Amino acid sequence: MTSENNNNGALSGVKVIDLTRVLSGPFCTMLLADMGAEVIKIEPPKGDNVRNQGDMVNGYSSYFAQFNRNKKSVILDLYKETDKELLKSLLSDADVVVENFKAGVFNKMGFNYETLKSINPKLICASVNGFGSKGEMSNRPAFDFIAQALSGFMSLNGTDETGPMRAAMPISDLVAGLYCSFGIVSALYSRVQTGKGQQVESCLTSSLISMMAYLSSESFVTGKAPKKSGNNHPILAPYGIFQTSDGEVAVAPASDKFCDIFLESTDLTNLLEDDLYKNNANRMKNRDSLNKIVNEKMVLKSSDYWIKKLNDAGCPAAKIVSLPEALNSQLIKDTDMVISSNGPEDRQIKMTGFAVKLSETPSKLYRPPPLLGEHTEEILKKIKK
Amino acid sequence: MTSENNNNGALSGVKVIDLTRVLSGPFCTMLLADMGAEVIKIEPPKGDNVRNQGDMVNGYSSYFAQFNRNKKSVILDLYKETDKELLKSLLSDADVVVENFKAGVFNKMGFNYETLKSINPKLICASVNGFGSKGEMSNRPAFDFIAQALSGFMSLNGTDETGPMRAAMPISDLVAGLYCSFGIVSALYSRVQTGKGQQVESCLTSSLISMMAYLSSESFVTGKAPKKSGNNHPILAPYGIFQTSDGEVAVAPASDKFCDIFLESTDLTNLLEDDLYKNNANRMKNRDSLNKIVNEKMVLKSSDYWIKKLNDAGCPAAKIVSLPEALNSQLIKDTDMVISSNGPEDRQIKMTGFAVKLSETPSKLYRPPPLLGEHTEEILKKIKK
Repeated sequence: MTSENNNNGALSGVKVIDLTRVLSGPFCTMLLADMGAEVIKIEPPKGDNVRNQGDMVNGYSSYFAQFNRNKKSVILDLYKETDKELLKSLLSDADVVVENFKAGVFNKMGFNYETLKSINPKLICASVNGFGSKGEMSNRPAFDFIAQALSGFMSLNGTDETGPMRAAMPISDLVAGLYCSFGIVSALYSRVQTGKGQQVESCLTSSLISMMAYLSSESFVTGKAPKKSGNNHPILAPYGIFQTSDGEVAVAPASDKFCDIFLESTDLTNLLEDDLYKNNANRMKNRDSLNKIVNEKMVLKSSDYWIKKLNDAGCPAAKIVSLPEALNSQLIKDTDMVISSNGPEDRQIKMTGFAVKLSETPSKLYRPPPLLGEHTEEILKKIKK
Repeated sequence: MTSENNNNGALSGVKVIDLTRVLSGPFCTMLLADMGAEVIKIEPPKGDNVRNQGDMVNGYSSYFAQFNRNKKSVILDLYKETDKELLKSLLSDADVVVENFKAGVFNKMGFNYETLKSINPKLICASVNGFGSKGEMSNRPAFDFIAQALSGFMSLNGTDETGPMRAAMPISDLVAGLYCSFGIVSALYSRVQTGKGQQVESCLTSSLISMMAYLSSESFVTGKAPKKSGNNHPILAPYGIFQTSDGEVAVAPASDKFCDIFLESTDLTNLLEDDLYKNNANRMKNRDSLNKIVNEKMVLKSSDYWIKKLNDAGCPAAKIVSLPEALNSQLIKDTDMVISSNGPEDRQIKMTGFAVKLSETPSKLYRPPPLLGEHTEEILKKIKK
């Protein structure tokens, strides 16, 4: 416990030196900061590039805010030996260092693991990279889109007509960041017993591979790629998106029981006596005609009507909403998933909330996203020369 | 530290009572088991439904294996008072309990948080649910497809032609499971200081909301939905999927510098002197004609040729591979992302590897996915009557 930051968060007292930029690494360290860790973001004199990207509020990047709240900002020019020495001082009494340079770059800067361990044997040294740190691929330039392509992730989405379809958000960066934070806290917990630090590593492709465990279970056995099923379920019918009188609803009858409920709610129980549709196997074979029959019923009433009726009967169903609709919805209010910075007026900015809730040590907005170098003086004056 | 399981994993000595079934919860507890926790999966006499689903190897479900390795299986019939008492005994010296019942169900079974705290004040009580535990939605039936619809996630994927497009894998379940495990370990770390347990909760929609932080930063400022851009980048060109002489490659020139490299590699540097394409803004306006010009060059050579040339020059590029191709690739070997059970012959089965690597307390396959009730006797005989 080396930090002076005691804020009652789960990771209160944990000091993190954050050398990350852009996305996967800053997301990882923000998750630690949200849990109460003191995260000191080391930035080059020009700042993290993201400070100048995306939509701005009073000259302040909303994109930067989404990935850097609850951190302190310290400027160091790591091309200068004097500033490298300052970094070493910071690392000497830190608990965690996180970097997301391309594999090998931190080594070349003079910070291989042996050096880090000699500076501070209790230090947990974490990295998020593209393709791991072993083998030919580890040196290649990485990017979320490439990880989606290389992991098989893209190949599974979409339909035969669309071909491979990426997820629009940089999902591999965020999952890899989350995995790294899980690994870091596990290493912190382990350190309580062992007294020793260690290395923690996550990467973009492995993170996506792990997210595909359900579909991989099929490929492991059959050796084949799962069939692309678009918005249909690969092995269940009826299921998917249906037209209503005023829009569309997603319906997910995930078992025979739910299918019965769905057909009853749409007044189509008679289909279960029809050879074409009497069981799931037959319904899968005749999915097109089945969906047409279901749609003829669904289109007679509004989305709200169907969602209430189906949910009341226990069948999962919902509107397909746009991102702004979601962010303004009652659900998001009830789950506190949009918060607003309590900082100075020119830094009041909306942000995504905390996705995991702890009752006794809840995540909080301790501080607004930092101005560049806002905490340089505060942090550096603590370093004993 | 109440468990007799000491295996040198990061969570060695942590005892987890696992009441989860199907997907999000079992993924969460498997992540804890992979880190060395002793996870005791409580199953009803018929077992987790997943045991009988998906593709089988020697009568053994590959789907079940993907989410339940490293756990012990104990049969309890929680409809019986005697078995509820056994559960209470197990909880009395456990560190963590995890459930993913619909919100409120565990309460109705007689296990509200006050009761759990009275049984064991150090217990960390975790749940993964659909839509949180407050508000109208919390009682609705949940399913990944519905969470993708309600969170805005689906609305962002695909193109104007395809409409909303789900990710093919149950991504909300897995991210929520991962978030819950991050929250649990944070609570364990906090307990070292406070001596007290607490509640931890994650849910499907909040998990997806957090994955969309990059795109939400735009919606927060503009109030508008990000434009659907399919496989194109929303604000960069050229970028995306290009045809080659023998397939397709994904290319991600994520800045002006990378764009220069890409155009140089394709012998198209002259485009930078053309008014139509001289800067990114103009290239975005004329993306269709630009992509056509780039494709005319790309189609002359093979995918392997372009990937080597672009990567050597520092520009991210890769083949779009199928899931089986990915699982068999050198990258997945180098990152150890496919492992095989070391259990009895009839339980040798392939599984996804560990997505976060710890150097001193690495995740391991401690035990194969358990047979139903395999550890009932071992665990129950330890309970002091």
